[in-house]
Amino acid sequence: MKVFSIYGYTQSGKTTIAETMIAELAKRRYSVGSIKEIHFEEFNIDTPGSNTDRHRNAGASPVTARGHDETDVMYPVKLSLPDILKHYSNEYVVCEGVTDYNLPKIIAASSVEDLEKRWEQGIFAVSGRVAEILGDEYRGVPVINVLEEPARLADLVVEKVFDLLPDVNEKCCNQCGYGCRGLTDKILAGEATRNDCIQKTSSVKLFINGKEIGMVPFVEEILRNACTGVVSTLEGYSENSSIEIKID
Amino acid sequence: MKVFSIYGYTQSGKTTIAETMIAELAKRRYSVGSIKEIHFEEFNIDTPGSNTDRHRNAGASPVTARGHDETDVMYPVKLSLPDILKHYSNEYVVCEGVTDYNLPKIIAASSVEDLEKRWEQGIFAVSGRVAEILGDEYRGVPVINVLEEPARLADLVVEKVFDLLPDVNEKCCNQCGYGCRGLTDKILAGEATRNDCIQKTSSVKLFINGKEIGMVPFVEEILRNACTGVVSTLEGYSENSSIEIKID
Repeated sequence: MKVFSIYGYTQSGKTTIAETMIAELAKRRYSVGSIKEIHFEEFNIDTPGSNTDRHRNAGASPVTARGHDETDVMYPVKLSLPDILKHYSNEYVVCEGVTDYNLPKIIAASSVEDLEKRWEQGIFAVSGRVAEILGDEYRGVPVINVLEEPARLADLVVEKVFDLLPDVNEKCCNQCGYGCRGLTDKILAGEATRNDCIQKTSSVKLFINGKEIGMVPFVEEILRNACTGVVSTLEGYSENSSIEIKID
Repeated sequence: MKVFSIYGYTQSGKTTIAETMIAELAKRRYSVGSIKEIHFEEFNIDTPGSNTDRHRNAGASPVTARGHDETDVMYPVKLSLPDILKHYSNEYVVCEGVTDYNLPKIIAASSVEDLEKRWEQGIFAVSGRVAEILGDEYRGVPVINVLEEPARLADLVVEKVFDLLPDVNEKCCNQCGYGCRGLTDKILAGEATRNDCIQKTSSVKLFINGKEIGMVPFVEEILRNACTGVVSTLEGYSENSSIEIKID
């Protein structure tokens, strides 16, 4: 799953970039999901006093509103990005305003001053209103006016954005030598690849009571062989099939 | 996961029953989720023109709004009950107005006439406004006024509601001999148990390329032993732990 974020101050053009990228990627037949970060403390999508609001106030979590052609699963907490992404099986997820996770980013700004204030690692494009007054590049990053060249920005997304990396503390894992955010920058600069993260080759995931359990490569290999050994004899299996086993 | 529904015409007292059961079950330290069916064609939780609405119109699905203390995952389709329940890991899920799946049900009504019109299989309690004018039982089912005896209705929920049954065509599976809805009635009447459904004993689930693969008990046993054999040596495992393995 390829996930990226568009961030910057309000009124910098974030939503226009997000909706244009969603539409461009969908036009290219990718399945696209999106996440919008809402920096408004009183945000509450439900109407106070509605039936679902009464469910929530009574203590239900999550509460789902299931309408005629819409289903809304509502959690009364701010979920982490990985927890939100558990709901997603899209090829691309476009995030707007999400800055608390290691993602490749498009920065949107109205002015060079704002651009400087919000500049951080992981940026692969500059867009928003500031694109009208800048040249082709800023700090070595392409500047693209999404209103004039939507397809070119989408091309850059497809070229640059890679499968979601983790975002762990360097003390927990620094196998690539750069840290997760450092590796993001290296990949965007063409100096490393997504394969440099062990999470790519680590294709066996194990959860005990819902909690992911890390395995050293040796144990992982044993578990993989034990499972594929049994499953490979069953109809429906071919080499490189994905396997999921749940034991309760 | 124990799932039940409260159904009946509008203004019959459904939401009051739902919120009272949510609160009563939560008070008993169960984790409770809920689902509200909205029979209003134009229902749309989002505000037209909002940023998330723009994401949706551009083609994103799902769209998540992530606020300060709320996260809403919005799908532009009516999801099936099993698809909604994939988001849930609660002990109880209280549904309001859901009638398209095989669930034990509380019927809410304002009058005996309405009760008769909406009567169907799977009912284990009568409540709502009609409870004020009825005796202790109706058609052999307890009548409970939720405003006067909320704890008694919750007791009945805890006594009667069982782990979610499937709702498949009898041509696909009729191992219990009653069909899924027939088994629901038999369990509620105390003439069968949840164990009479093979889905209870089948605690190993296998998916190849995302598709569930049925297994005869012998193969299931081999797969279970192969997996638990490896996993049981790892830290975090204890007997009866749930295990999930994903191999890509």
